[in-house]
Amino acid sequence: MSLKLFDLAGAEDDRRFSPYCWIARLAIAHKGLPVETVPWRFTEKDAISDSGQGAVPVLQDGDKTIHDSWAIAEYLEEAYPDQPSLFGCEMSKGQARFFQTWVEQTLRSKLVPIIILDLAENLHEKDRAYFIETRTKRFGMSLEEFANSSPEQVQAFQDSLGPVRQVLTQQDYICGANPGYADYILLAIFQWARCSCPVALLTEEDPVFAWRDRMLNLFDGLAGKAKGYPVI
Amino acid sequence: MSLKLFDLAGAEDDRRFSPYCWIARLAIAHKGLPVETVPWRFTEKDAISDSGQGAVPVLQDGDKTIHDSWAIAEYLEEAYPDQPSLFGCEMSKGQARFFQTWVEQTLRSKLVPIIILDLAENLHEKDRAYFIETRTKRFGMSLEEFANSSPEQVQAFQDSLGPVRQVLTQQDYICGANPGYADYILLAIFQWARCSCPVALLTEEDPVFAWRDRMLNLFDGLAGKAKGYPVI
Repeated sequence: MSLKLFDLAGAEDDRRFSPYCWIARLAIAHKGLPVETVPWRFTEKDAISDSGQGAVPVLQDGDKTIHDSWAIAEYLEEAYPDQPSLFGCEMSKGQARFFQTWVEQTLRSKLVPIIILDLAENLHEKDRAYFIETRTKRFGMSLEEFANSSPEQVQAFQDSLGPVRQVLTQQDYICGANPGYADYILLAIFQWARCSCPVALLTEEDPVFAWRDRMLNLFDGLAGKAKGYPVI
Repeated sequence: MSLKLFDLAGAEDDRRFSPYCWIARLAIAHKGLPVETVPWRFTEKDAISDSGQGAVPVLQDGDKTIHDSWAIAEYLEEAYPDQPSLFGCEMSKGQARFFQTWVEQTLRSKLVPIIILDLAENLHEKDRAYFIETRTKRFGMSLEEFANSSPEQVQAFQDSLGPVRQVLTQQDYICGANPGYADYILLAIFQWARCSCPVALLTEEDPVFAWRDRMLNLFDGLAGKAKGYPVI
């Protein structure tokens, strides 16, 4: 029986941009497991009520239901120990948690103002009012006031990639010679942007650009072939 | 035959503050290997000329000479594979390189202005002129102009610890349930400060404070017993 993943979708069923869903999809691909993804919208809380909460990703594996990308990764490691490991060892898993926190506190906060209006534009119409209301409350201002895709904001996002950029001049992936869970955490941020917003985030000579290309091509182009905007 | 580590010392032979030397010392302790440390000063280039360069840490193991803390860690892993691993696996090693880069680009830059004058004060007199000259050139201004140990600067340093702080509410160490190389990288920054400068960097209720206490107590208090200022 194959896995089933509830995956946030936009106006079109095949526009998928949730970063946490992308982490889960890439993790499942890394484990070499087949998965059926189910397009899901913010307002379809009933469809995932089995998980006891209202956000995706939600993974169903037979009679098991797991939510939250980190819990899904832990579940996959435990349930499929003979498939390629996402972390490799406990010390790597500990550091992956640091890496995720760093991405959330640093990159994510720089990225949200750049993509927020395009993201809202690409939502399914049944989700738009919910999205605008919850985000307006979260930001304490309207999406238009919060939005900022100026060259200076893109530069601030690029600057925040400093440690990633330097490390990618020394090794091909965050996890070393081969991609691992930390790489999926970082790609998910770029995939969130690429699938919702046409703004170019990286220049071609940036080592992060070459890394992203390698990542988009993994697993027969899983992330690169997904509906979105071209990376220029 | 035991290892010999050339270790930067200050005015007193037993005042050791170099962060890269601390990484090496903690790595050697993690491997459970005995080591003799040799106090060394910036201006004693001849003593380490075997290494083909002029900076410490320099490790001698029999007829082998290795310099640079990262190269020393790699050497220890290869030469002593049956001792506890510093990294655990390749993915962890890749992420440790990211972590080191993040610490250097983020924490280190915030810390240097806080400790620089006390650091100069604690140097051996034969090193002081060399230190002041090289650092004045590096900063493009005098040490006094560059220095800043204001509460605002300490707050900026504390703020830059954000991702570390959050992760330490979820697990005891950066590397998870047990300390690893990334933890030594971070402790080395605090040890650099503690052994050279009396400024309090953390408040007692900070999860990073409790982590540092655990780290200072490792290996029979190796870092905690070293000559320096009390952590308040």
